[in-house]
Amino acid sequence: MRFGYIGSMKVKPGHRAEVAAALVDGSEGLRAAGCDLYVVTESATDEDTIWVTEVWKSKEHHDASLQLPEVAAAISKMMPLLTGEFTQQQTRVLGGLGL
Amino acid sequence: MRFGYIGSMKVKPGHRAEVAAALVDGSEGLRAAGCDLYVVTESATDEDTIWVTEVWKSKEHHDASLQLPEVAAAISKMMPLLTGEFTQQQTRVLGGLGL
Repeated sequence: MRFGYIGSMKVKPGHRAEVAAALVDGSEGLRAAGCDLYVVTESATDEDTIWVTEVWKSKEHHDASLQLPEVAAAISKMMPLLTGEFTQQQTRVLGGLGL
Repeated sequence: MRFGYIGSMKVKPGHRAEVAAALVDGSEGLRAAGCDLYVVTESATDEDTIWVTEVWKSKEHHDASLQLPEVAAAISKMMPLLTGEFTQQQTRVLGGLGL
């Protein structure tokens, strides 16, 4: 069963658009690493929060992606723009529309 | 910008598979109502929780879908199987992979 991830990150004031754009730009490159879906959204009620929903072929694909040089570089570039407040849910993907 | 919704619902013990299957089965029918993505997942850490990520053409499409007879019927059929504990995040969809 495919692995899912729903996470939020809080961005330092004024940096949300920049971080979100970087996440969108990087998402296409995740396909080769086993990512099937990577939805970047901004909270409609909290101006400093980004929500991401991901679907991966397996948890192993997801975990391995974090070690990719381009992903690690993107994360370390982004980190100074984040407050360090994260939430995360790990899920099993059952199906639905548009997958 | 497209409207996003990330929500969780808690199911009475033993009923998660039944509720999740009903959500998956109903998702294809949402396309005509303006839904582009409807991902049904089960928590990997809490055996009674379902997480759903949705993308709609607009918030108005989402809100109107709740009034559709088949959606209203599905919700009222499902309600007795839920504990009443929900979370929800309304978002604006910025882009990503697989959308």
